[in-house]
Amino acid sequence: MKKLILSGANGRMGRVIASYVKEKPDCEITAGLDLNTTVYDDFPIFDSPAKCNMKADCIIDFSHPSALSPILEYAVHTSTPIVVATTGLSDEQIALLRKTSEIISVFFSFNMSLGVNLLAELAKKAVAVLGDDFDIEIVEKHHNQKIDAPSGTALMLADAINHAESDRFLYRYDRHSLRQKRDPNEIGIHSIRGGTIVGEHEVIFAGKDEIVTLTHTAMSKEIFATGAVNAALFLAGRPAGLYDMGDLVGMQNSVE
Amino acid sequence: MKKLILSGANGRMGRVIASYVKEKPDCEITAGLDLNTTVYDDFPIFDSPAKCNMKADCIIDFSHPSALSPILEYAVHTSTPIVVATTGLSDEQIALLRKTSEIISVFFSFNMSLGVNLLAELAKKAVAVLGDDFDIEIVEKHHNQKIDAPSGTALMLADAINHAESDRFLYRYDRHSLRQKRDPNEIGIHSIRGGTIVGEHEVIFAGKDEIVTLTHTAMSKEIFATGAVNAALFLAGRPAGLYDMGDLVGMQNSVE
Amino acid sequence: MKKLILSGANGRMGRVIASYVKEKPDCEITAGLDLNTTVYDDFPIFDSPAKCNMKADCIIDFSHPSALSPILEYAVHTSTPIVVATTGLSDEQIALLRKTSEIISVFFSFNMSLGVNLLAELAKKAVAVLGDDFDIEIVEKHHNQKIDAPSGTALMLADAINHAESDRFLYRYDRHSLRQKRDPNEIGIHSIRGGTIVGEHEVIFAGKDEIVTLTHTAMSKEIFATGAVNAALFLAGRPAGLYDMGDLVGMQNSVE
Amino acid sequence: MKKLILSGANGRMGRVIASYVKEKPDCEITAGLDLNTTVYDDFPIFDSPAKCNMKADCIIDFSHPSALSPILEYAVHTSTPIVVATTGLSDEQIALLRKTSEIISVFFSFNMSLGVNLLAELAKKAVAVLGDDFDIEIVEKHHNQKIDAPSGTALMLADAINHAESDRFLYRYDRHSLRQKRDPNEIGIHSIRGGTIVGEHEVIFAGKDEIVTLTHTAMSKEIFATGAVNAALFLAGRPAGLYDMGDLVGMQNSVE
Repeated sequence: MKKLILSGANGRMGRVIASYVKEKPDCEITAGLDLNTTVYDDFPIFDSPAKCNMKADCIIDFSHPSALSPILEYAVHTSTPIVVATTGLSDEQIALLRKTSEIISVFFSFNMSLGVNLLAELAKKAVAVLGDDFDIEIVEKHHNQKIDAPSGTALMLADAINHAESDRFLYRYDRHSLRQKRDPNEIGIHSIRGGTIVGEHEVIFAGKDEIVTLTHTAMSKEIFATGAVNAALFLAGRPAGLYDMGDLVGMQNSVE
Repeated sequence: MKKLILSGANGRMGRVIASYVKEKPDCEITAGLDLNTTVYDDFPIFDSPAKCNMKADCIIDFSHPSALSPILEYAVHTSTPIVVATTGLSDEQIALLRKTSEIISVFFSFNMSLGVNLLAELAKKAVAVLGDDFDIEIVEKHHNQKIDAPSGTALMLADAINHAESDRFLYRYDRHSLRQKRDPNEIGIHSIRGGTIVGEHEVIFAGKDEIVTLTHTAMSKEIFATGAVNAALFLAGRPAGLYDMGDLVGMQNSVE
Repeated sequence: MKKLILSGANGRMGRVIASYVKEKPDCEITAGLDLNTTVYDDFPIFDSPAKCNMKADCIIDFSHPSALSPILEYAVHTSTPIVVATTGLSDEQIALLRKTSEIISVFFSFNMSLGVNLLAELAKKAVAVLGDDFDIEIVEKHHNQKIDAPSGTALMLADAINHAESDRFLYRYDRHSLRQKRDPNEIGIHSIRGGTIVGEHEVIFAGKDEIVTLTHTAMSKEIFATGAVNAALFLAGRPAGLYDMGDLVGMQNSVE
Repeated sequence: MKKLILSGANGRMGRVIASYVKEKPDCEITAGLDLNTTVYDDFPIFDSPAKCNMKADCIIDFSHPSALSPILEYAVHTSTPIVVATTGLSDEQIALLRKTSEIISVFFSFNMSLGVNLLAELAKKAVAVLGDDFDIEIVEKHHNQKIDAPSGTALMLADAINHAESDRFLYRYDRHSLRQKRDPNEIGIHSIRGGTIVGEHEVIFAGKDEIVTLTHTAMSKEIFATGAVNAALFLAGRPAGLYDMGDLVGMQNSVE
């Protein structure tokens, strides 16, 4: 039973993590950190790391960039691994993570979704096996308020495939204006927008009379909570270093 | 049991129709017409309509544009309804169909697939019910040798929806170059290309927390044979006039 | 601009309706009814219909079965059409709805989702056109806590198709124990269970080398709010009678 | 440029392989073996291995079980790796393959599809990463003439996942007769049957607010030709031993 300290315990994602961990048999939250010290669950809440006298196997930080320094200091001071799941860190803060990771184990990913990172890993395996006999297309779907296209995740998936293939691919966003056959060295990327779709990503490998399709569907942003807890379980006990979701997904592969 | 005469009986589509009809309990082929008079099935083959002395409920013509005139004359002469399923007719030939349809019933569609025409009909119903609370996107998939994008069928579907909605939609083929929210008055159209995909069309209606998706998947060009036989059964016994797949799909709806 | 009275305005679904209507240009809420009279929006809340002195084009009742009688009385007294969207009504209450509908227009459906009812309507159209050359299969997906299988909606879809086809179909839930070809007069019904899936229903028509698939995906229970507002807009101005989602979907079809 | 000898060159799959290889830049067929010695392509056809005096990097055998012995003898005699892609081998013949593989490299798989074997490999990776927080369901679709359910491939996929997870899963084929929540230790397996569907397999991992889906769609049996050629390219130059598609898929993973 791994013990976790949850920073940002009374924020939206903190509450999601608390209820998620409650159902898991392999970990528990022993303390929360939050400026709001209301106790909703069966663990105490402290308004500063300094007051937290509990020992844990890992810290999950889902608070705010402005709270990064004190929680990192606490992690170093108590030699506790830390998963940093806050978004919007500055370059200086990321540099600080890197430096801290020389002393303790630190986990940080731009996309904390386990499923999306798995999809990237599986897509790399697929292209390694299927080779250049299969055409690759990526379709992503998001709500009608999203401004950017394609999604950052779609580009992350395309880049993962592209790097694994010596960057031989061009990205094609529109075929409407062309009148030519598909170039084998392109990845088509298509952005569907509609309604309140949270996020779907599909990688299609279309070959001679067979198609392999890898799909990830997100139903809420709460998937980042699941990812953070998985990261904490992964991180506990590892040597100092900077880890990310690619490591988590990749190492579990090789253990297999 | 409807009796059919099959023109182009020994061509590729003719053979497909023959084997398809053999399994159907509600129709049979009583004669074939083909320059190649080899008999593969249990009906005779004549090398010219003039030699065919059989009475039928409908003629299916899957031969060649060059054979159109004599078969139309035969249809008029014997007062037999005719389904013209050959592709590549000239404007003059289409005018001839129109004129012939003043005397006998004639069926002609640019797309003979029952399923695709049904999809268009269902999409019109869907937009009438769902109204402007749902965003509409069309995704089509074809093989990597296809030169045009989007497919003619995707445009047919978009147009069917658009006309039913007072032509209020613009068609959007690429969102990559924009940085803006989706316009409610656009239909996104996306062309996936890969491998040997025969043809798939998907119309997505994405609203607040729900999505309705209508999909047609073609596995071979033989679906045009199925469509032609359905057209023949629909046409037999109808008054003179020019009919198409939209009529077939629409009328069967209203009968219901 | 249709004016609506919202009964149960401060309940979960009431709040969803309020925020949904706020974004719609064709209707507005002029008054809410709720025992909790906190005002969250720009309309007043009354704790009993008697105190509500506003005129409206339609009432939406998303409160509780125990509040049915007074709101129906108010609707009759003010000659206002009413959409009853509460669930768990008794047989006596449904009889009361029927009787009330002799005086005013009343809308009541067991499933208030616009999309699901549309799917049923489209499936009936599809089977009318495709006939017995296509095999029909229904796949439904729900979360892992759901006890019943198949879902009520899957059965509703199967029944809608079956009744349209002279009840010729048997429902097949398992093929594992058989070693025989598919019976053309069966509808296969398959229940996928996993994770937190809210609800997906898919009707598959598989024919010779083509497949038509109709899919509805629900992302939250809030879709019933959308359905209720659509029902209110449909109901306003109609003559007395009992209406349901089938009417809404069907009439909008025929208007087209 | 790898040189291949094609046994069963004038059979249906032999012809498919010949036309497939013609388009590939990294291999060519230098000789065919077939009782029918008609030459359709640009390589000679011999009616017995004894007459074939060409050196090759690999033999692909897509002939007939009755022709296995002479072609194996020829492979051993000329020290040429061999891919045996014929189906319906007896236990004695499989024992013979095993024995032969002590001398030369032999490739044999019950399912020669590259895509399906990749799907099994990816599913194992997915379960290793996602662990027991995700529910696993398998959906397979085949034509309406298929007698067995579930498909052998669906069981192969389920077994691959199950073995990777200490065989903790039960297979559930029907939920209709139960009224209980899903057991986390079950894999649901669902068999859709309809029309002329060639074969689709879908492995669904459904977790908290996210779903990962891996799908393989076969459009024809010709995919076994693609698999056999990939096997030949994989086998050429390997040490003696018995290899199968799992090795091919797995080794290409680790090379990456």
